[in-house]
Amino acid sequence: MNVKLFVTAVALAGAAQAAINPASVPEIGQLNRYRAAPRDSLLSVVPVDAAEFLVGQHFDISVELHNVGNGTVYPDLSKLDAKINGQSLTSFFGKQYTPKENWNFTYFENNAARDIKKPTPVGVTRLSLRSVKINKAGSYKLTLKAGNQKVEANWIVRGFSQRKAQNLVLFIGDGMAPSMISAARYISRKTAFGKFGDNFLEMEKLGTIGKVATNGIDAILTDSANSASSYHTGHKTWVNAMGVYSDTSAGTLDDPKVETLAEIIRRERPGMCIGIVSTAEVQDATPAAVFAHTRRRSDKAIITDQAINPFNGTGSGKTWDVKPVVPDVLLGGGGEFFCAGQAGCASLNKEDYYAKYQAKGYQIVKNKDELKNYKGTKPLLGIFTKNNLDTWLDRNVYPDNLLISKSSPNGDGTTATKQPGLEEMTMTAIKTMDKRCKDGWFLMAEGAAVDKSMHPLDFDRGLSELLELDRTVKAVKDHDAKNYKGKTAIIVTADHAQGYDVFGSVDTQYFNAQPNNDDNKLPEGQFSESQRSLQVQKRLAIGNYGDAGWPSLVVDDKTGLPIKWEERFKLAGGKIDGPQHTENFQLHVPAPGSNPLSRSPAVTDAALTAVFGTAVAVQNPNATLEPHGIDYNPNLLPGDTQSVHTLQAVDLYCGGPDNWKWACAKPMDNTEVFFIMADALGLGKAATSGTGSKYVKVKASGSL
Amino acid sequence: MNVKLFVTAVALAGAAQAAINPASVPEIGQLNRYRAAPRDSLLSVVPVDAAEFLVGQHFDISVELHNVGNGTVYPDLSKLDAKINGQSLTSFFGKQYTPKENWNFTYFENNAARDIKKPTPVGVTRLSLRSVKINKAGSYKLTLKAGNQKVEANWIVRGFSQRKAQNLVLFIGDGMAPSMISAARYISRKTAFGKFGDNFLEMEKLGTIGKVATNGIDAILTDSANSASSYHTGHKTWVNAMGVYSDTSAGTLDDPKVETLAEIIRRERPGMCIGIVSTAEVQDATPAAVFAHTRRRSDKAIITDQAINPFNGTGSGKTWDVKPVVPDVLLGGGGEFFCAGQAGCASLNKEDYYAKYQAKGYQIVKNKDELKNYKGTKPLLGIFTKNNLDTWLDRNVYPDNLLISKSSPNGDGTTATKQPGLEEMTMTAIKTMDKRCKDGWFLMAEGAAVDKSMHPLDFDRGLSELLELDRTVKAVKDHDAKNYKGKTAIIVTADHAQGYDVFGSVDTQYFNAQPNNDDNKLPEGQFSESQRSLQVQKRLAIGNYGDAGWPSLVVDDKTGLPIKWEERFKLAGGKIDGPQHTENFQLHVPAPGSNPLSRSPAVTDAALTAVFGTAVAVQNPNATLEPHGIDYNPNLLPGDTQSVHTLQAVDLYCGGPDNWKWACAKPMDNTEVFFIMADALGLGKAATSGTGSKYVKVKASGSL
Repeated sequence: MNVKLFVTAVALAGAAQAAINPASVPEIGQLNRYRAAPRDSLLSVVPVDAAEFLVGQHFDISVELHNVGNGTVYPDLSKLDAKINGQSLTSFFGKQYTPKENWNFTYFENNAARDIKKPTPVGVTRLSLRSVKINKAGSYKLTLKAGNQKVEANWIVRGFSQRKAQNLVLFIGDGMAPSMISAARYISRKTAFGKFGDNFLEMEKLGTIGKVATNGIDAILTDSANSASSYHTGHKTWVNAMGVYSDTSAGTLDDPKVETLAEIIRRERPGMCIGIVSTAEVQDATPAAVFAHTRRRSDKAIITDQAINPFNGTGSGKTWDVKPVVPDVLLGGGGEFFCAGQAGCASLNKEDYYAKYQAKGYQIVKNKDELKNYKGTKPLLGIFTKNNLDTWLDRNVYPDNLLISKSSPNGDGTTATKQPGLEEMTMTAIKTMDKRCKDGWFLMAEGAAVDKSMHPLDFDRGLSELLELDRTVKAVKDHDAKNYKGKTAIIVTADHAQGYDVFGSVDTQYFNAQPNNDDNKLPEGQFSESQRSLQVQKRLAIGNYGDAGWPSLVVDDKTGLPIKWEERFKLAGGKIDGPQHTENFQLHVPAPGSNPLSRSPAVTDAALTAVFGTAVAVQNPNATLEPHGIDYNPNLLPGDTQSVHTLQAVDLYCGGPDNWKWACAKPMDNTEVFFIMADALGLGKAATSGTGSKYVKVKASGSL
Repeated sequence: MNVKLFVTAVALAGAAQAAINPASVPEIGQLNRYRAAPRDSLLSVVPVDAAEFLVGQHFDISVELHNVGNGTVYPDLSKLDAKINGQSLTSFFGKQYTPKENWNFTYFENNAARDIKKPTPVGVTRLSLRSVKINKAGSYKLTLKAGNQKVEANWIVRGFSQRKAQNLVLFIGDGMAPSMISAARYISRKTAFGKFGDNFLEMEKLGTIGKVATNGIDAILTDSANSASSYHTGHKTWVNAMGVYSDTSAGTLDDPKVETLAEIIRRERPGMCIGIVSTAEVQDATPAAVFAHTRRRSDKAIITDQAINPFNGTGSGKTWDVKPVVPDVLLGGGGEFFCAGQAGCASLNKEDYYAKYQAKGYQIVKNKDELKNYKGTKPLLGIFTKNNLDTWLDRNVYPDNLLISKSSPNGDGTTATKQPGLEEMTMTAIKTMDKRCKDGWFLMAEGAAVDKSMHPLDFDRGLSELLELDRTVKAVKDHDAKNYKGKTAIIVTADHAQGYDVFGSVDTQYFNAQPNNDDNKLPEGQFSESQRSLQVQKRLAIGNYGDAGWPSLVVDDKTGLPIKWEERFKLAGGKIDGPQHTENFQLHVPAPGSNPLSRSPAVTDAALTAVFGTAVAVQNPNATLEPHGIDYNPNLLPGDTQSVHTLQAVDLYCGGPDNWKWACAKPMDNTEVFFIMADALGLGKAATSGTGSKYVKVKASGSL
């Protein structure tokens, strides 16, 4: 990049100057300065171009001007000319900019700069308008100028006049790729000579089918925070961010906020309940995105506070004119950030958040018996483990494994053997909300260990979690049929994919009888290392195409879940990415002494890390599979010990009111899910009717 | 398996005997005797249980009784008691069984038996009823008994009274996994700060979205013949089979046939045209399944004959009371099976099939100029290459590559540089049919090299083919809007998936600058082979999550296709399966002297094959990529030189008449696509209205 050119441009920001070299701003490519800035622009505004809002949705506006190349020179934003539909921004919103803020940051222009540790410094001036809203549906055009820099943003404000559903459920199968849904069906559903007929999964036959592109603003690939935030705000954002756009400052609590669906429900529907259920920590990205505002998903102690207390930020983002969500039901793991006084506790300011929730009127339960016995009408906090809940497979098929995890929600190092499952938590949440609220409820329920199991290539645990989620969908459908006659809008989707699929079957009996390598056939010295590593004999256990036949898992008709995970004929499945690891296609049995609750396929190698000056992972020597599997070479970043998320769109299934569910039957950006939910509940009273255009018009101004 | 028990059971087939050991028939697992036989049954019937038919659809019935363990003893089927809804089968259909047939075959019970080359012999007696049909919609129950063996089949006959579409197009992206559709969008469509808005692919926003399970009867995984046959007949079948159920005899032309949609159109809609377009050979599985009946997709010379001449089979399946389809337009490759008199020709009986088609009235064109200039009304045969057409990438971006393939449709070893693309073929087919037929048309158009490129891990070629298909979808939409005002029913789907996805991006400039291995950092002797094979430095070029950023491909707005395939930032994509190979994530440039038109990642190794007594593939030493890539270990069968098909459901997109397209908006077996097409054209006049139940009721009697 021509740094000098940028410095000049910024220094002369008061007067029109020559155009900036379009090729020198690395918006395309991997590393970048700030993806909210249009390509080649030093001036940026969030919410960005093509942003969509619900009528009356609260949000912050942040305008940054960058000086690239010298982090100590702050550009002049005092002459910012900012208009919306021709009117000045401050006049339109009836608010003044918060005092200008300055900071600096650095970024690497490319991988070569990273390697030689040569970052580019940037000086930033920021003006912001906090907690504004637009009360009328329609199109809004922002034009911002500062010196020779200008930026445009076309916003659309949408609203819904008619409420169509009494209740709304958003099920998230975290990381639940469409390919995993297929695999789960093949191991759990009978066919008639290959025909599934009426035997598709509950989620698959829920009603209508759509597809969701999961990427954020920053990149083609997302994490769970970024994507969940889009579902709950209608705005795309950055990896690790929830309920905010990202700015470039270091602080995680000063970024421009966007009101979440749950916050809007609290404002517009005082008689509705809000419930949050997850098999992860309740502070994990997917549940936290219902209510939290932070640039950093790992702010878990703060997130625990944000659920019930007014927003407490920094800088110009210190306050937020929106009340906290204070969920009626909050169930999952994450006791670590509630408890106090134990070594395993990490709550905010070391305070007892169980007590703080209790003071807000919550009933607290900490195991599945207490959960089952709860028949009250008080708001309910159920925290069943210190961290994430254990998986369905461990909770149900291998319960002895739970004796190993010292996961008491009190953080005292005792075991948590009485963990509920997703279905039990979900149905208690619903029944509690049925009693508490006259105007229906909104529930977010997450099957978290789909993703958490697929990351370490623990496929059986991932697929069984998916099937537990599917059974929970059925329970909610049944409850609606009995109590609400189809007036519950049910959405089942994922936040991103995991690149898993199945290419055949494995005869594990045959596989396990083969030697770990072909040394018996290929004496050392006569064949190359490459030839000797082919594991020919083991691979003869694979059947593909017609010889794949049918796997031998058997369904437990009572639970709807496969209960036999160690049968002879298993799926030959895998991921497109992974660290160095070995795969035997069987239930992963841990090495003696290691944690059985999750596979650990690779670990960081100290010697290699020292040589390369960057983390390097190798196959976990303590997690060698028995029987030995097929060896996979790594194809990820050297330090990755687990596989990562992938690009493919996820499925969206919607069931419920006939005048609503068809809104899901299209391909869409993840932000659209927010508007589909707002449509179900008739949120954002539209001054003009309708939902705005089916698709935002995308121009060439974007990221590509 | 207890072979003696089976022999006894068969020998005493005239009288009721003890039950057969349910555990001894390997219907579950990989290798098997006959998947049309219910688990544990020696008696079988096809069409199988849960089969669905269109009213009036012609089909053959085949009943087999097996003697397992002694191939020379043929069981007694003379006392077969076969009823349909209580009436004898022969009386119901008004036809007599063809004379009994006997044969024997062998199969391997499991992989151990295969390894020691110990097959199990089976003696077979078969009775069949040929070319029957059911003229009334409803449920039909078959009960068959022979001695102590009995089998049941519940059939459903469906019909459609109302025609909803003037024209019908079935687009098949062969092997087009949903994940590939996503990847193709990310490299070809602009976003506005990550938002696709109205910029989804043409196929994605066609209208409604469904999901299709692609497996056949035989296995969870399918080939293109098996799956295409389900689309065109409404019946599931076996790998390699088209327009037939499989029997166990060796002959490929005596298997029980099922009438195809095109045959039904010929019978019920005399004023309609039928067109077939493919970038593969016109005899390849996907185009051939429109009209062909054979157990073996490689019967390509016979398939060429079947398109225009009466069925000429063997045994009791010799005849077929259904006229040949004789397509109005047939465009693609496959000159090898038309030409005669050249070394490259392999036509049936060495006859000149160009001449035979000409005698039937066809105009013949052999290059894109002749295709473009054709304005006539005669039926059109366009054969542009000897084998498959070259890919979009070679035809459009690297046309010099076409000079290398000696693919003249005349089989004379000259080049075929004037190959049309899918769009040109499709639009000429449609315009020709517009002129020829007063009652609309049915077109099957296949983007074949999506699959053919993904098999050898040639991702750029696969994705560009997918985008060519998408552009063709747009051309057909536009043609419909102009000429038919939405009266064309358009379906876009795939026949099966390829397990591809994207886990990040690659900075190829950085990647290519790194050494092929880490020898410069890890001297031999100090680190293990495993540690030294990690390619740490190259993998630092990968960006995942937020660091994946955005790839740098640039769209040609005129063609809608990315024209820059050798840019710096590429997708880091891959498949879940593959032979031993190397991957540099870049356009695959062949080694000097090798065929540039397709990647060849692995080849059979003679020395290893000799050692193991089974084919063993290794990385192709003549296709080492430059720059060297990341090395992948194999995870497939040892002999596989290419990757295979995968399990995940494929997307189904439908656009067209509003009273039709919603039929696609559900999860379904691939057989349902046939009924959706019949619905569009109002085929199979239903004696009772309606389409039958939404889903076939699946009982536990099936394959699992």
